Amino acid sequence: MDRNERLEKQLAFALEIDKEKNIFRQTHLSQNGRNENDAEHAWHMAIMSYLLREYANEKVDIAKVMLMCLIHDIVEIDAGDTYAYDEEGLATQKEREDAAKERIFSILPEDQKQELIDLFDEFEACETPESKYAHAMDNLQPLILNDSNGGGDWRSHKVSSKQIYGRQIKTRLGSETLFAYIDQLIQKNILEGNIRE
Amino acid sequence: MDRNERLEKQLAFALEIDKEKNIFRQTHLSQNGRNENDAEHAWHMAIMSYLLREYANEKVDIAKVMLMCLIHDIVEIDAGDTYAYDEEGLATQKEREDAAKERIFSILPEDQKQELIDLFDEFEACETPESKYAHAMDNLQPLILNDSNGGGDWRSHKVSSKQIYGRQIKTRLGSETLFAYIDQLIQKNILEGNIRE
Repeated sequence: MDRNERLEKQLAFALEIDKEKNIFRQTHLSQNGRNENDAEHAWHMAIMSYLLREYANEKVDIAKVMLMCLIHDIVEIDAGDTYAYDEEGLATQKEREDAAKERIFSILPEDQKQELIDLFDEFEACETPESKYAHAMDNLQPLILNDSNGGGDWRSHKVSSKQIYGRQIKTRLGSETLFAYIDQLIQKNILEGNIRE
Repeated sequence: MDRNERLEKQLAFALEIDKEKNIFRQTHLSQNGRNENDAEHAWHMAIMSYLLREYANEKVDIAKVMLMCLIHDIVEIDAGDTYAYDEEGLATQKEREDAAKERIFSILPEDQKQELIDLFDEFEACETPESKYAHAMDNLQPLILNDSNGGGDWRSHKVSSKQIYGRQIKTRLGSETLFAYIDQLIQKNILEGNIRE
């Protein structure tokens, strides 16, 4: 492949992922703002991952973590956002995301397609220090927004503490310190009636 | 400072920068979408910087570039977005952004405040390999969106080729290859009547 063809593929991918800015999540922006989209969420996670890296349980390659945060939701361009506590959506999530992964990353040159698929799969498997820590960010970021809004997203979805703690297991794998912080924050929101006991 | 006080400051900063998602730019999303916001723009630049790093004129520390891309517009939370071709806004931009920089980064612990201010200043000075390459991303990202939309942003602002080339000098400092691509793209848009000669 000559350089121009390679660059064209890379820029076609760059243009394709622009669509992630139109994939909206259940989380609302601070100050009781509108729903957040995936690109904003990923941007926020990546900065947080850098600033909070001292709390990772294991030493992490921070460039890898940031990139993982930035790309982890690209498949949702086709597959849509699956709310963390949507049992039905979660059942079909993997199938939808696998098809999306193949289509979208195939726009890239072969080597970069494979690299990004590997990174996406590593995030999903949540077995390496980087992926565990990236999952801690994926969980912490919406939580601080929701807490800042008086827990409105938990209340409107009638989320229970069991559901939240189930998800936060991955946070603990990535960072005991951040899990301890989140634990306090969940308890506060249970007391305030924002999260069902 | 004990760890909790440090973590509280870091999370207060994380919450503060959420506001960047409400700072809208002149650029429109692909598929003739709505205006883009700063957080989306930064997310997009950071991924592009990773995927296109082979075209940087000089070897770059890619973690530093990605972080620079992610934070380079945080000051606009207070200072607002200054359109690249808004002469009046550009005249007061530095003063507004300096005040914003001091207020916003001061939310962080002192060491991280200094680190992020240094990184922001490095980006602005555009003298190091990383900052030159990050500027290439800052210029290339809106250009591919605008081109994909038939040059609508250039037409509505009556932007001239002289204005665009003036800004793209920094792209060339970061990447001759990407500048060559951009040059073709500008010429195409001049021929199509989207950019004034």
